[in-house]
Amino acid sequence: MNIEIAFILSISISVLAFLVALYFYFWVKKQPSSNKEIARVGEFIKAGANTFLKKEYMLLAIFAGVAAILIFVFLPHPIWSEATASWTWKRNLAMMLSYLFGTVLSAMAGKVGITVATIANMKSAEAATKGIRPSFLAGFRGGAVMGMAVVGTSLLGVSVVYMLSGHVSSVLGFSFGASSLALFAKAGGGIFTKTADISADLVGKVEMGIPEDDPRNPAVIADNVGDNVGDVAGMGADLFDSHVASISASLVMAYALDKSDNKFTIMIFVYAALGLLCSIIGVLLARMGKKGTPTQALNLSTYITTALYAGFTALASVLFFNYEAGWRIWGAMMVGLFVGTIIGLVSDYFTNDNKKPVRYVADASKSGPAFTILSGTSYGFLSVFPPMIGIAVSALAAYKICYPITSTPVSGMFGISMAAVGMLAIVGMIISNDAYGPIVDNARGLVEMGGLGEEALEITDSLDSAGNTVKAVTKGFAIGAAGLTIIALLGAFMSEVNEAAAAAIEAGKTGIEMITGFDILNPIVFFGLLVGAALPAVFSAMLMLGVDRNAQRMVEEIHRQFKTIAGLKEGKKGVVPEYDKCIEIATVGALKELIPAGLIAIVATLLVGFVGGVQAIGGFLAGNIISGLLLALFMSNAGGLWDNAKKYIESGHNGGKGSDAHKSAVVGDTVGDPYKDTAGPSINTQVTVVSLVASMMATLFLTYSIF
Amino acid sequence: MNIEIAFILSISISVLAFLVALYFYFWVKKQPSSNKEIARVGEFIKAGANTFLKKEYMLLAIFAGVAAILIFVFLPHPIWSEATASWTWKRNLAMMLSYLFGTVLSAMAGKVGITVATIANMKSAEAATKGIRPSFLAGFRGGAVMGMAVVGTSLLGVSVVYMLSGHVSSVLGFSFGASSLALFAKAGGGIFTKTADISADLVGKVEMGIPEDDPRNPAVIADNVGDNVGDVAGMGADLFDSHVASISASLVMAYALDKSDNKFTIMIFVYAALGLLCSIIGVLLARMGKKGTPTQALNLSTYITTALYAGFTALASVLFFNYEAGWRIWGAMMVGLFVGTIIGLVSDYFTNDNKKPVRYVADASKSGPAFTILSGTSYGFLSVFPPMIGIAVSALAAYKICYPITSTPVSGMFGISMAAVGMLAIVGMIISNDAYGPIVDNARGLVEMGGLGEEALEITDSLDSAGNTVKAVTKGFAIGAAGLTIIALLGAFMSEVNEAAAAAIEAGKTGIEMITGFDILNPIVFFGLLVGAALPAVFSAMLMLGVDRNAQRMVEEIHRQFKTIAGLKEGKKGVVPEYDKCIEIATVGALKELIPAGLIAIVATLLVGFVGGVQAIGGFLAGNIISGLLLALFMSNAGGLWDNAKKYIESGHNGGKGSDAHKSAVVGDTVGDPYKDTAGPSINTQVTVVSLVASMMATLFLTYSIF
Repeated sequence: MNIEIAFILSISISVLAFLVALYFYFWVKKQPSSNKEIARVGEFIKAGANTFLKKEYMLLAIFAGVAAILIFVFLPHPIWSEATASWTWKRNLAMMLSYLFGTVLSAMAGKVGITVATIANMKSAEAATKGIRPSFLAGFRGGAVMGMAVVGTSLLGVSVVYMLSGHVSSVLGFSFGASSLALFAKAGGGIFTKTADISADLVGKVEMGIPEDDPRNPAVIADNVGDNVGDVAGMGADLFDSHVASISASLVMAYALDKSDNKFTIMIFVYAALGLLCSIIGVLLARMGKKGTPTQALNLSTYITTALYAGFTALASVLFFNYEAGWRIWGAMMVGLFVGTIIGLVSDYFTNDNKKPVRYVADASKSGPAFTILSGTSYGFLSVFPPMIGIAVSALAAYKICYPITSTPVSGMFGISMAAVGMLAIVGMIISNDAYGPIVDNARGLVEMGGLGEEALEITDSLDSAGNTVKAVTKGFAIGAAGLTIIALLGAFMSEVNEAAAAAIEAGKTGIEMITGFDILNPIVFFGLLVGAALPAVFSAMLMLGVDRNAQRMVEEIHRQFKTIAGLKEGKKGVVPEYDKCIEIATVGALKELIPAGLIAIVATLLVGFVGGVQAIGGFLAGNIISGLLLALFMSNAGGLWDNAKKYIESGHNGGKGSDAHKSAVVGDTVGDPYKDTAGPSINTQVTVVSLVASMMATLFLTYSIF
Repeated sequence: MNIEIAFILSISISVLAFLVALYFYFWVKKQPSSNKEIARVGEFIKAGANTFLKKEYMLLAIFAGVAAILIFVFLPHPIWSEATASWTWKRNLAMMLSYLFGTVLSAMAGKVGITVATIANMKSAEAATKGIRPSFLAGFRGGAVMGMAVVGTSLLGVSVVYMLSGHVSSVLGFSFGASSLALFAKAGGGIFTKTADISADLVGKVEMGIPEDDPRNPAVIADNVGDNVGDVAGMGADLFDSHVASISASLVMAYALDKSDNKFTIMIFVYAALGLLCSIIGVLLARMGKKGTPTQALNLSTYITTALYAGFTALASVLFFNYEAGWRIWGAMMVGLFVGTIIGLVSDYFTNDNKKPVRYVADASKSGPAFTILSGTSYGFLSVFPPMIGIAVSALAAYKICYPITSTPVSGMFGISMAAVGMLAIVGMIISNDAYGPIVDNARGLVEMGGLGEEALEITDSLDSAGNTVKAVTKGFAIGAAGLTIIALLGAFMSEVNEAAAAAIEAGKTGIEMITGFDILNPIVFFGLLVGAALPAVFSAMLMLGVDRNAQRMVEEIHRQFKTIAGLKEGKKGVVPEYDKCIEIATVGALKELIPAGLIAIVATLLVGFVGGVQAIGGFLAGNIISGLLLALFMSNAGGLWDNAKKYIESGHNGGKGSDAHKSAVVGDTVGDPYKDTAGPSINTQVTVVSLVASMMATLFLTYSIF
């Protein structure tokens, strides 16, 4: 196979994904919707989400513009450098354009998701009056539009950039564009959604005892908007970024391995394209059986996709890569796929209300909120152990499997990156499952607000609960994949440094050495390790403080409305709260808080790099990875655990709703919300961004550092 | 100077410290005590503490016995190995005896502390009726007995072991004995004290609204016992272990650096002895000025000690080590001393109620407990940044200062270990300040229970508050010192491995190589990094779950007593709760929970070492250090912050006692208690134990690992 065919394959399957997305989009759109109240509220949510997105993107456009100029001037080489065989100023231009392309595609993926989600929620709500199966399908296919669009865009983007530029540095630029936008989208959306969610719950459920999604609550629309901008758009941007990053890291190392033929590069595109193809088949087949549950339907399509992927790639190996190195890489991919599933199952154990941890926390809640927090924190810490061991073992296995391919460690690191590609191959399916969650969550709210009756509410409740169960698994999967990806990016960083070092040595520069590794006992590396490890803690603290500050503002506003709007508390007919005020607070606050948190990650990388040089950056990346994994896993799992402990009590255990145990569990859930939906998932993106900045800056750090 | 003089100096100053401790002990003992109620309650506390200690030590004796046998059979070489010039089975015997000596001395230090603390609290309570100055002095001198005894024992122990055995491996054995006992003492005492504290607060303050230390509360004596076994005995064992470990790590590297003369070894003993001497002078001078506050008195004596140490060591350099290497090492020590102070001040910023973080959390508490937890967690995460940067910079600086001493990196690592020695030199003073805290805390309880009146209560309240302020600083200091010590232990590990490797190569074994470092990109090292980083999370989760489980048992018991003992709630005269039942629950629970948490650290090290070999252990130690520092700093600072936010509200802000803000703050404090007094400080010891196990096992890991 030659590289052109690989490109054509990737692009064709991307286009196929777009067609499927379009088909689902029109399918969802043509589902009936007649309820006026739902339409009114639905429009409100749509308008709120679009307003936020517009403001956010305008702000990010400024950021991206500045970053683009800096890239053009400095990267990969300062524009005033002398032209060489491998570099002219056109490379900078290509990198800049790739970067902008990455930001635009990432933003588009978010926009598409929001658009379809804000339609699908209405259709799913309305369909709930007819039964669970049509309601499920409307929700799922809405999510699948997002899944197909995101992965199609990612694969198309990488293929086009690499095909046109022919340079891995441009691919890194593209990946950085996607990641930096994802970082801000995740942080901003995460702050928005949790601001609204916490405030609505706190005043509505806890203080006033009115149900969730009660239309009297001024924050209820903001909460639904938040589900869209945080969980749909933010999550879409996040997985877009992981997918792009895993492919980019692989391409960087494949470039170092491929001497004349492009065999490793070809493999990457073929396997990524096959993953998308399997996801397409999986989502097309997904529907609820007559006797099945929504959880089973979601899981079954995931299993089908996974099995297909294992089979298709084995077939591809037989047909095209039927030699030792080919099979070794296939093995590394299978390690990734396998461990991803294991990690997902472990997350499930710690967050499933049939298992001990959730039950224990629900019981501890009887003794007061302090015990909810203590026991949840403890299980959260315990829960990091299995996935970290899983990531450690899979990285080691993938390395050992692929190390013999060449005599350099690069092939081992390439194995790790291919394990990440293997894990992320079925991400189209994962995103579809994941986006399904907030859509049916919103549908539930619309059913409540539209007064569609108890039966429809029960249906959407059970759809929502399936979304939460599956979410824990997909989140574990996503963190595992991100873990391997960022380890692979560490390898990509070394490849980039050595390419730069080789060029510099060839150009006759002195004092520059090839890097053979990063020794922990080198005090500069250790310095980097400590600083890198501290960063995720600071980053997540900033996000959580943002949520905290913002939620306090919104709680005040809700109190004001209940005090000053006559008849609102009593639910007098025709009295409507000022929903837009709450949306405004969430929007302004989120935009204000997201920039410093995002910038600190980038600035810290630049500081460490220019002070300590590439050795410090090596330690910095490793420290960042391990502490990032630790905190992301802890926060995601503890948050999911508290959420489900609360739901477990609400379903009638330990005194049920309104009991003391329930009040404690609500405190746990409120703490867990920004853990699992703001800070936790943003940490992955923070680590990815830092790794990409490091790789892009490799030459500059090599040349201009103080130490 | 020759080594004999250094030994004599160390031993003499240790003996001087014992004499000062004895003087203080008798001084405290002869202070008047006449109140019968205080004597009665005081005896109760003493008996409870001694019972716990006895049971704990009996359990630990079994553990120590087993460990001693294993050491004798396997370490440093299996006893059936062939004798060489550097090894016969007598080395194993020496190591085993040193290990036992370490455990016994560590246990003794705890016992001495408890004995004097349970007397000094009564004296300090009684003295409070006469004024703040005598009450302060009784509390402080009680603490100083502990300070002098612990550091004297540590220095004497190391000197004697090294003098008699002449081997650094015996010193490592001694250090491991001290640390493994400290690990269990810290964990067991920490679980005991927080079980009692949380349960007493939860039922007494929150549910029933009765004051702290109210004698009706069945858990109140257990709480006071806990202050002794957790904060006094546990903390004493902890700092004993850090002090020994910093000296041991230095000795290991000095052994590698010293070729024929013992100049570096001599320096270590001289500087450690001078540190103790300065602490002796500092505690002798400490008293409250007529217009001063207790905080000023504590701080002033610390500053005097620090200044004296800088001066004395400079003088020693002029007189004995007046050459470049001597001054370089002095510089590294000063870096440690300086950074230790900075880290202490940063801890103070995050936990002082005059500063923004505490105020912010106290304000956030108005919106409910979830905001107390979220904002406190966020500031806790933020607070790790400055000290981690501080440790990173000081390690880098100390390394760079001392690297030029020889051409090998060992001299740089030796610099780091000497920075730790510099930080820990004034630890005699630090322990005195630290032990003062629980003594006056207990005195406050005795004043309340003995009915000594409002004025005496106010006095002990202000003494207690000074104890809390100073505690934050000393705790920051202790973590900083532990941070540098464990980095130094990483260097010690490499020295040990290379000594073993050199011996094996000389003996003609094949397949063994000298270690030049631990490369992060080596997948085995990375594997170790991930596993090592996960360990502190699991370890602290186990401890916190222990507290959680145990406190729930005790809350049940308190409820039972209030229900079944007639007249107890109403405070009927002559009705006394069954204090001993609560003490029993705390004791049994703590002993049950401490063993698995302590064992997992040791077992994980053995597993990683025998599976992955020395390279995996290198990564494992580094991962353990950075995640251990991260979590220890987070937990200590967040816990201190919540404690002081609660106290800030109790002093009349945001609605004062009984307000909603106060209730939220109590939840924060309850969560923070096991953070700051159980898990946080135990993590340091866990990391130290792991590092020492690794160094002791170096030869076996080198020879018998799978990879």
